[in-house]
Amino acid sequence: MLSAMLYEINEKIIRLEREGRKIIKFNLGDPDQQTPMEIIEAAFEAMKKGKTKYASAAGEAKLREALAEIHGVDADNIVITPGSKWAVFATMYLLLDKGDNVIIPSPHWTAYDLAAKSLGVDVKLIKTKLESNWEVNIEELEKLIDDKTKLIIFNNPNNPTSKVMNEKVVKEMVNLANEKGVKILADEVYADISFVKTKSLLEYEGEHIVIRSFSKTFAMTGWRIGYLIADKALTDKIIKLNQITLTNVPVFIQEAALKALELRHQIIKAMRESYQKRAELAHKILSDTKLKFTKPEAPFYVFPKLDGLNSEIFTFNLLDKGVAVVPGTSFGDYPEHFRISLTAPDDEIELGLKIIAEAFK
Amino acid sequence: MLSAMLYEINEKIIRLEREGRKIIKFNLGDPDQQTPMEIIEAAFEAMKKGKTKYASAAGEAKLREALAEIHGVDADNIVITPGSKWAVFATMYLLLDKGDNVIIPSPHWTAYDLAAKSLGVDVKLIKTKLESNWEVNIEELEKLIDDKTKLIIFNNPNNPTSKVMNEKVVKEMVNLANEKGVKILADEVYADISFVKTKSLLEYEGEHIVIRSFSKTFAMTGWRIGYLIADKALTDKIIKLNQITLTNVPVFIQEAALKALELRHQIIKAMRESYQKRAELAHKILSDTKLKFTKPEAPFYVFPKLDGLNSEIFTFNLLDKGVAVVPGTSFGDYPEHFRISLTAPDDEIELGLKIIAEAFK
Repeated sequence: MLSAMLYEINEKIIRLEREGRKIIKFNLGDPDQQTPMEIIEAAFEAMKKGKTKYASAAGEAKLREALAEIHGVDADNIVITPGSKWAVFATMYLLLDKGDNVIIPSPHWTAYDLAAKSLGVDVKLIKTKLESNWEVNIEELEKLIDDKTKLIIFNNPNNPTSKVMNEKVVKEMVNLANEKGVKILADEVYADISFVKTKSLLEYEGEHIVIRSFSKTFAMTGWRIGYLIADKALTDKIIKLNQITLTNVPVFIQEAALKALELRHQIIKAMRESYQKRAELAHKILSDTKLKFTKPEAPFYVFPKLDGLNSEIFTFNLLDKGVAVVPGTSFGDYPEHFRISLTAPDDEIELGLKIIAEAFK
Repeated sequence: MLSAMLYEINEKIIRLEREGRKIIKFNLGDPDQQTPMEIIEAAFEAMKKGKTKYASAAGEAKLREALAEIHGVDADNIVITPGSKWAVFATMYLLLDKGDNVIIPSPHWTAYDLAAKSLGVDVKLIKTKLESNWEVNIEELEKLIDDKTKLIIFNNPNNPTSKVMNEKVVKEMVNLANEKGVKILADEVYADISFVKTKSLLEYEGEHIVIRSFSKTFAMTGWRIGYLIADKALTDKIIKLNQITLTNVPVFIQEAALKALELRHQIIKAMRESYQKRAELAHKILSDTKLKFTKPEAPFYVFPKLDGLNSEIFTFNLLDKGVAVVPGTSFGDYPEHFRISLTAPDDEIELGLKIIAEAFK
C-alpha cells in the first residue's frame, strides 16, 4: 500500500460510502465469515476462569504441544505470536542487521518490504511472472545472493496470486539456500485451506522458518494469533523478544485457538469448500474476458492481468461502478495486474465479478 | 530478572510447588483480583457482534476519543498498544539509534534496560536512594545528558518503590529536558490507583510521552492493552510501526477497555481501597522490624532495605519459609533491598508479611 494513487483510492471508497453508495469490497484479505461460535465461547469460558493474567512469552504449553504434534516438531520449536506479521518482523529484527539483505519473490505482501525498510534492511525482489506460471528462476536467485543475504522470504500459497509453489522449485531453492547458508522463511498462512496439496517448508532439508496463523483458516484475523516454527535457537530469541515487547498473547485467545484446533477438520473442510466455490466462480466468469490469470490454488485471491493496463487508473474507475480491488503495484512491479479478494458475502461476489468482467469483454 | 541467582530462585519456587509446598507469592506484579465480570461480558458481546476482524493500527476511534477526553488531549495524540511494554519498546525503537543513550532513574523496571540492550542503545542509570526519599538529583542528571541522549524514562509512581515523584523535582527534570531537547517518557501505569495525588507528565510543559495501561487499574494484565499519549508526530510513527508488526489490538479487547472506562470511578475506588489497606498493613507489620522503607504511595510494592543484607541469599532462604520476593538486584544496584508485591490474596498477605518481619526482628 505504497502509492499516492492507493491513498486516493482508499479516500474515494470512504467518500463513496459516506454518500451512501454500496461498494463491493474485493480489496481486503479479511474473510467475510464470522469466527465460529464454539471458538468465541471457548474464549469467554477462559476469561471467566481467570485466564486473564500475565503468561508465558512462548505461548501456553498446551497450545504449543498441540501444534507441535500437528506439525511433527517439538513444542520448543513453536512460539505463539500476536499474528503472523509479528513473527515475520521479529525474525527479521533478530536475524538481520542494518545493511543486510533479504530476497523476496514478487509479487509479494508489502508487509515484508515495510518491515525490512523499517529495520534498515535491503530488499532484493526476484520478479516472477504469470507467463512462467509464477515460478522463481533459480539461476536468477543464485545471482542475487551475496554475503549480506541473510534471509529469503516467500509466501506459499502466495498472496496475491493464490499460486502454490512448484515442489521441485522449492527443493532447488532450499538446496541453494542450504549451500549458501541462507535461511528461508516460508509464510504459509494460506496453506491449511489451499485447494491443492501444499508441501510445507518443514518437509524439506535444513533449519528454516515456517509461519502459520489462525487468521485465515478459522476466520480469526482480528484475534491476532499466529505462530512460528523454527529451530530452538531462533524460538528462544523470539521468546526473549516477546518478553520485552508484548509479554504474551492473551491466554483466553490461546484457549480459543486450542478450540479451533480441536474443530479443525470440520472448519477447514467448510472454509475450503466455500472458498473453492468462489474461486471456481471467478475462474468461470473471468475466463470469458480478455484477462489472463492462473487458476487460484488457494483462497482468497485472483491476480489477473491485461497487457497494457494501468491498474491504478482502472482501480480508480472501477470504484465508480461499485467494486473495490487493489492495483498490482501494491505487490511489486505489476502495473498490468490487479488483485481481487473473494472475501465478500457470496451474493456480492457474483455481482462484483460480473462488473469486472464487463470491463474486459 | 538478570542474575543467575534469580534463575535459581525461580527454579526453586517451581520445585517447592511441585513438592506440594504452598508458596506465598509476593514476587509478581500481577493483581490477584479477577477482571470485573462486566468487562469480560463486554468482550464476549463484542466477539458475538463480529468485532473479530482486522482493525485500525491506531486503535478504535471510540476508545481513543474516550481516553483523549479523560486526559484532555486530542484523539490523534493517543495510540492503543498491546500493553504498555510495547509502547516503551516502540518509542525506543523509533526515537533511538544504535549508540544513542537513554537515562533511567533507578531502581527501575528491567524491561526498560532489556529493550535498550536489544536495540543497541546505551543505558545510563541515575541512582536514587531510600535515604534521599528516592529523589532524582538534578545536577547528577544534567551531568549525564550528552549529545547522544535522546530519552529519559521514569516510572511514576515507581516500581519497585511505590513512591510518587516530587512535583518540584519532576518540574526541574522537565525544564532541563526541554532545555536540552531531550524527550521524557513517563510510565504512569500505577498512577490511576495511587494513594496520593500523582501529577501526570501531561500537566508539565513540553512535548513528552506518557504511557498508561489498563493492566493494573482494572486487573487486566493478561489482556494486553495499554496506550501511549504523545504529539502526533510520534503517534503517527507508532501507528505505522503497529501496521507492520501487530496490525491491531483485538477490537473485542478494546470494547472491554471501553467498558472498564465506563465503570472506572467505582472500579478504581475499590482497587485503591483494597491496595491501600494492604499497604497500611505492610507498613504496620514491617515498621516493627529493623527494615527501612518509604511508606507506599501506590500499589503494589514495598522495597525495604536492611544495611548489609545480601538480598539474593535472603530471598533464596525466605523461600524455605514459604514466601517468594524479588531481590533488589533485579531493579538495579540495590543488593540490600528486596521487593514485596502485595498482590496475593488478603489472607496470605498478613501471614507472608509476618514471616518476613520475623526474619528482621
